[in-house]
Amino acid sequence: MHRLPTFLAAALLLPASPLLSQTPAPYSEQTLADMAKLQQAAVHGDYAYQQVAHLANNIGPRLSGSSQAQKAVEYVAAELKALGLEVTLEPCMVPRWVRGEETAVLTQYPGQAEGTTQKIVLTALGPSVATPPEGLTAPVLSVNDFHELNALGRDKVAGKIVLLNHAFDERMASQGQGGQAYGQAVIYRAIGPSTAARLGAVATLVRSVGGGANRLPHTGQTRYAPDAPKVPAAAVTAEDADLLAALTAQGPVTMHLVLTPQTLPDAPSFNVIGDLKGSEHPEQVVIVSGHLDSWDLGTGAIDDGAGVAVSMEVAHLVKSLGLHPRRTIRVVAWMSEENGSAGARQYAKDHAAEAADHFAAMESDLGADHPLGVGYVGRADTRELLAPVADVLAANGAGLLQTVAQAGADIGPLADLHVPTFEPIQDSRTYFNYHHTAADTLDKIDPHALGENAAVMAVTAYALANLEVPLPR
Amino acid sequence: MHRLPTFLAAALLLPASPLLSQTPAPYSEQTLADMAKLQQAAVHGDYAYQQVAHLANNIGPRLSGSSQAQKAVEYVAAELKALGLEVTLEPCMVPRWVRGEETAVLTQYPGQAEGTTQKIVLTALGPSVATPPEGLTAPVLSVNDFHELNALGRDKVAGKIVLLNHAFDERMASQGQGGQAYGQAVIYRAIGPSTAARLGAVATLVRSVGGGANRLPHTGQTRYAPDAPKVPAAAVTAEDADLLAALTAQGPVTMHLVLTPQTLPDAPSFNVIGDLKGSEHPEQVVIVSGHLDSWDLGTGAIDDGAGVAVSMEVAHLVKSLGLHPRRTIRVVAWMSEENGSAGARQYAKDHAAEAADHFAAMESDLGADHPLGVGYVGRADTRELLAPVADVLAANGAGLLQTVAQAGADIGPLADLHVPTFEPIQDSRTYFNYHHTAADTLDKIDPHALGENAAVMAVTAYALANLEVPLPR
Repeated sequence: MHRLPTFLAAALLLPASPLLSQTPAPYSEQTLADMAKLQQAAVHGDYAYQQVAHLANNIGPRLSGSSQAQKAVEYVAAELKALGLEVTLEPCMVPRWVRGEETAVLTQYPGQAEGTTQKIVLTALGPSVATPPEGLTAPVLSVNDFHELNALGRDKVAGKIVLLNHAFDERMASQGQGGQAYGQAVIYRAIGPSTAARLGAVATLVRSVGGGANRLPHTGQTRYAPDAPKVPAAAVTAEDADLLAALTAQGPVTMHLVLTPQTLPDAPSFNVIGDLKGSEHPEQVVIVSGHLDSWDLGTGAIDDGAGVAVSMEVAHLVKSLGLHPRRTIRVVAWMSEENGSAGARQYAKDHAAEAADHFAAMESDLGADHPLGVGYVGRADTRELLAPVADVLAANGAGLLQTVAQAGADIGPLADLHVPTFEPIQDSRTYFNYHHTAADTLDKIDPHALGENAAVMAVTAYALANLEVPLPR
Repeated sequence: MHRLPTFLAAALLLPASPLLSQTPAPYSEQTLADMAKLQQAAVHGDYAYQQVAHLANNIGPRLSGSSQAQKAVEYVAAELKALGLEVTLEPCMVPRWVRGEETAVLTQYPGQAEGTTQKIVLTALGPSVATPPEGLTAPVLSVNDFHELNALGRDKVAGKIVLLNHAFDERMASQGQGGQAYGQAVIYRAIGPSTAARLGAVATLVRSVGGGANRLPHTGQTRYAPDAPKVPAAAVTAEDADLLAALTAQGPVTMHLVLTPQTLPDAPSFNVIGDLKGSEHPEQVVIVSGHLDSWDLGTGAIDDGAGVAVSMEVAHLVKSLGLHPRRTIRVVAWMSEENGSAGARQYAKDHAAEAADHFAAMESDLGADHPLGVGYVGRADTRELLAPVADVLAANGAGLLQTVAQAGADIGPLADLHVPTFEPIQDSRTYFNYHHTAADTLDKIDPHALGENAAVMAVTAYALANLEVPLPR
């Protein structure tokens, strides 16, 4: 039994769909009315903006294991308590990596003025190892991709600082496929350092994974392979990658590279959990979440203060409007997404026995620009259950329903336990210009668009928490 | 006697204008044909791009008095000699200011996590004095403009680090009025530090003068007034200005500021002069120019490697096409525009006696984006003499003729001696996003648009060098 899609029912001038179907209506009339109220309150509210402003401006960068991350845990916990939620800090151990000095200069290059060097702008990738404190000096080898690197082989690569100059596809991103563009390029950041190290590279540079052209290096995580030497790894800006490619094409280029990050012992930290208990099925939870940690270069406004803020806003709105969801709405501020999602993995482990009671999980982790709708990982018949959600969200231009290839990083471990996952589909055209850079700051967030994201989270989560039928798993 | 504007003649289907007039035609048929050839050669050429690529990538930043500036002098002189020009290095003494360490952290602010600080991104203005080597620590006071600052008075300002948070008008710039927007905001950079120092400020920060939002500080020159204490002066990014304004509105904010630039004794340097001698009036010169020095953060591609490159291209094109201008075309690469135009002032002084023989002067110093046409400072009747130039340049969309309020910085001293001045009118919508930042790099130049700028310089200069009538002065 399938309901007609609502747009088709409208086109045929048919009466409302429940008449066509033997299945119960997925949402009560009251729930539908409350969803509309939540949508309006969200787009006109400013609680979410106040939250992300505090996280970004007052607390600042929140790298896992840092004092700021701990302050953020305490802050979010206190705010959720003030909303009347049942708040728990769930412990997890997180990586503790601390950026150090990071400088690079070219000490030899074609056309060099006597006695001078040229500055190269870069930033260490987490969890890069350090160079010697005084730095290392080596010839630079620039390649466009793994194919070129492998073709050169150990003879040409050994002893070199290797630049993997693979460009983020800005045209793809500019057409709304930022996530796809990121996915294509990020492989160089993820496995490039170990790939080059296996061929004898003494350090690896990657072209920043992201758009824009503002001499901003984009940090991010690299993954050292167990079978490769760990070499210092950094991202250069697009401009500096171009410069290195141009100069190495002309003649020998030598770089002096200093990176002095430290990897400290894992540190205790927390996921912040705030429950707004369900009136009928308190044991069943619908998660709304973002990650509380951020990279250290900016202030973590779009990645992902915004996601935490709109999740907090869901609870704030439901409470403000005096609504009582049938299932529990659980706000989660995840810890350490940027450094490997230790918090999310710990949560999935700790709550594995309750997986069946995790009715659904949402995460917002693609910034705060205008949302187009709701993305979901799940069975095709999820779509018709979301149609009324889309109808409500169409009021702020977020009526699109789309399957997505995989769940957000922090709810991925729950998806692996067959929990259905949902997310706002944000306009990501500029997201990757700022993502993981010093320019991830509060001004990148438009308060109105943030409210629209809060609407997506609140309406979807509330609908799921009140769904009258099971969600396909 | 006025010629009809050419577009009007065309509309009326009248024959070519010389028939309508008793005055001699301003350009011979041969000159008009050669102008058209120059236009085509310029837009299809790549000499200018090769020049700016070398200046930006191989030589790099060229702050006055630096080794790179000297290398650039030698490079441009050699290139002009290779083109067959008579090359002279004309000495000038230039300021020598060297950037040092520049860091700022907030040591106290509302919501601060225990034991942490927040980083503020800034860069010293030239020729800022230094803080003590260990830095200075003081409360931050943020004001939006001079009115607010003066209203607070010495009681509130003394002992503070003052932020002058006056925003560059990005909407104005986005509508093609970048120069106007710059002019409105730059006053804060120019006189802000001394204005605040007179009220007892211990250091002055200005919001970066420029657009974009990429956490890029824009350096530039400040002017210490003789009657004010010299206090350290820096530009913060737009993001950091917003942050400081937000935090100071909430409670006390304290900054630890370290700026260690040095002002060294003035250094000998040079304007590079290359003459392509006129066939009839070698003593009369038409200058084509840009400034060879740059700020030190980027590589001086758009400010103003491009201006030097298109000026060199004028000589290259005239030589390549085997043309022989009636007057001398003089290529000038000015030194030290950024630090007060010492080179241009010296030139005007040295050549004051020949002012009458300076037939015209052009400078390109507003980047390298698509040119819309030719701007000029001069009498209204200059316009009709330029009409055939505009007709030729219309082939690359640069047919606009417009008076401009003042001559370019380096040809201003010549304008003061009544030399008519001309300049390309560039699309400046993004120029001030990169200007004086680390992101003034080669990738900001589109080779085709650079060729269009070379066309404006070459066609205009060649027309002036062959003008059959006097130019109104």
